[in-house]
Amino acid sequence: MRTKRILIVVMDGLGDRGCEELGWKTPLQYADTPNLDWFTANGSAGVVDIIAPGVRPGSDTAHLSILGYDPYKVYTGRGPFEAAGIGLISKKGDVAFRCNFATVNDRLEITDRRAGRVKTPDTSELVRSLEGLKIEGVECIVREGTEHRAALILRGPGLSADITDADPHDLGPIAISKGRSPEAQFTAGVVNKFVLATYKRLKDHPVNVRRRAAGLPEANIILPRGAGEFPRLEPFPEINSMTAGCVAGVGMIKGICAVCGLDVIDVPPCCSGGTDSDFMSKARTALEALETHEFILMNCKAPDVCGHDGCALSKVDVVRRLDEMAGYIKDNMPEDLVIVFTADHSTPCGTGDHSADPVPMTIYTKGNVIDEAVKFSESGCARGRLGRIRGHDIVRICMDLANRTEKFGA
Amino acid sequence: MRTKRILIVVMDGLGDRGCEELGWKTPLQYADTPNLDWFTANGSAGVVDIIAPGVRPGSDTAHLSILGYDPYKVYTGRGPFEAAGIGLISKKGDVAFRCNFATVNDRLEITDRRAGRVKTPDTSELVRSLEGLKIEGVECIVREGTEHRAALILRGPGLSADITDADPHDLGPIAISKGRSPEAQFTAGVVNKFVLATYKRLKDHPVNVRRRAAGLPEANIILPRGAGEFPRLEPFPEINSMTAGCVAGVGMIKGICAVCGLDVIDVPPCCSGGTDSDFMSKARTALEALETHEFILMNCKAPDVCGHDGCALSKVDVVRRLDEMAGYIKDNMPEDLVIVFTADHSTPCGTGDHSADPVPMTIYTKGNVIDEAVKFSESGCARGRLGRIRGHDIVRICMDLANRTEKFGA
Repeated sequence: MRTKRILIVVMDGLGDRGCEELGWKTPLQYADTPNLDWFTANGSAGVVDIIAPGVRPGSDTAHLSILGYDPYKVYTGRGPFEAAGIGLISKKGDVAFRCNFATVNDRLEITDRRAGRVKTPDTSELVRSLEGLKIEGVECIVREGTEHRAALILRGPGLSADITDADPHDLGPIAISKGRSPEAQFTAGVVNKFVLATYKRLKDHPVNVRRRAAGLPEANIILPRGAGEFPRLEPFPEINSMTAGCVAGVGMIKGICAVCGLDVIDVPPCCSGGTDSDFMSKARTALEALETHEFILMNCKAPDVCGHDGCALSKVDVVRRLDEMAGYIKDNMPEDLVIVFTADHSTPCGTGDHSADPVPMTIYTKGNVIDEAVKFSESGCARGRLGRIRGHDIVRICMDLANRTEKFGA
Repeated sequence: MRTKRILIVVMDGLGDRGCEELGWKTPLQYADTPNLDWFTANGSAGVVDIIAPGVRPGSDTAHLSILGYDPYKVYTGRGPFEAAGIGLISKKGDVAFRCNFATVNDRLEITDRRAGRVKTPDTSELVRSLEGLKIEGVECIVREGTEHRAALILRGPGLSADITDADPHDLGPIAISKGRSPEAQFTAGVVNKFVLATYKRLKDHPVNVRRRAAGLPEANIILPRGAGEFPRLEPFPEINSMTAGCVAGVGMIKGICAVCGLDVIDVPPCCSGGTDSDFMSKARTALEALETHEFILMNCKAPDVCGHDGCALSKVDVVRRLDEMAGYIKDNMPEDLVIVFTADHSTPCGTGDHSADPVPMTIYTKGNVIDEAVKFSESGCARGRLGRIRGHDIVRICMDLANRTEKFGA
């Protein structure tokens, strides 16, 4: 049997609930999506509990599940994925954090959690001033991410990730990290000292002198959160015996894929992961990547952003643009492709956060069973023959359609 | 509540994918099946992952799953089922194999893996010459199967099934069986000596002298494969508190059912398990068997054969004949019957091997919920109220509809 290649298109946060401004339709039910509907009408559809019914996934746990891992077993917090996403390579025993540059006053009260969405080159300069920082024998390695984001790795003996955040997730006094177990007290202490050390080194840094003069919020402290040890996963390409890569604009998604052993493929700067992301360029990148990889996971972040912003009409607009992208893929995809369109979770505009609603999915390949589903939406895909499946089934089902599975028995 | 009887009709390898020569329909979508559709329209339908989504079942693991066993726990290789299927009763510690009579030249190179599809009475005579064969204290018990097939049981102390096949599954030199662990070296050695012993006893056997004279390939060696220890299963009739039998033409299916404790019911010779099998006679046998058994599993092998042959049009023809059989059952079944039509796996004509695609299923009994499914096919059954279930759920659902389950709680 000839094997096929596999492309999974994850439209982040795409699922929704009925939106008042759309006459209680979801954005997918409301928008005209002729290309996504073509894939649905010519393939097999279903709905997916990315983790399990009623479980609200994060984008990180969701992608782990889609890649076939059990997030309950392998998820160790978001920090390590953020760190991996911006290229910080960690070692066994490291504890990783995601961080924000923030603005504090001289009583160490947070006045802006994102330091006015400070970005590079300011963040690069600031991070440089933290090079070589060592606290109680623990190396503190910081790297800047997109905008006000950064990642921190602590490296040294006796560390534990079982600590609370130094980021209070709100304005007001900074939080004091605490160990949740006696073994973790040491690490919590290092984190608290790290936070003060960043304030000391950054508050009068030339970058902040400039920002003060320009009336901008100073980026004068770094607040770590989401402590996690680095998970050691059996690499996806080994588990599934195929070369694999990811095409994504968002750091954390790149990080998850990197941790799972996928090649992180460069995307053009226009594929930002924002609502203005150039989906066509991303699709072109994904199709090109299939020339050197047997499996590609592609993530489009924009619908999730609209959901978090609670803006149903802009989500409809994003859906239309994603549909145009699906049309581009339809016109340019290779013959031997198994392609999935789905989401990592729902982000209903009405709640502005992730929900556990099952997400629509369609899977197309030449010769797949054509079922009775004709419309790509939360309700339309439920007519398909796939029924209601789990996120971790997606890759296995693709593998079977791609003639890549071993027979169990005779 | 009055209990009912249960008949599960397993149409082997019935599921398929879109076939080019059928306008990308599946054989079930393409063929007119008024009787299977009657059962679907008047019963409850769904689709079944016989083992799990994306897992490609063998016929052996699939039937274990349909009978409610977990193949991951009880499957020990195909040998024991083949042996049981031709009536070889094994004991604890035995290792069983499936075998082929083959033709080798005097350099022990295989020139025909099936010895010209030699059959009884030749195979019976040849097997008789191996009676009493003992190697290093291990009894070697051989019995002929259908055509060129046979089974071997090794009986003695210190045996292990953890060995490679002596059958290279190809023409050319015979393979040397090897132990995969130190404990298994002894068994591998016995197998290799067994193979040479069969050559010695068979090469100038009068049957082969006759075959040589007639220009037929000699059946001058026996090649064992699929070593397995005999699984000890809790008998199906005890687990489910009902008498149970199987109606099948194929040895391996009979063997699986025998190992699970079902009575293997004699079928007329016309129920061969091939594409020319007389489905009507088999259905008659199954309905008669329901007079003495509360549960019957019936297997029709033909659609699987068409799938392996890659012949969509002959699969359509087999589907039509199976539908006529369903009509016969409809007209002759008892009032108190719960009947299921399903498959053990898909065998898409386009790939010529088993796939993990979920299979259609309909379950009819007077008074079952009539749902919205009206067409018996991979897509049509997905409209039914059963949704997507697992193979091991089938018997439990039947038991409940047959008023045979215990209430859990009060």
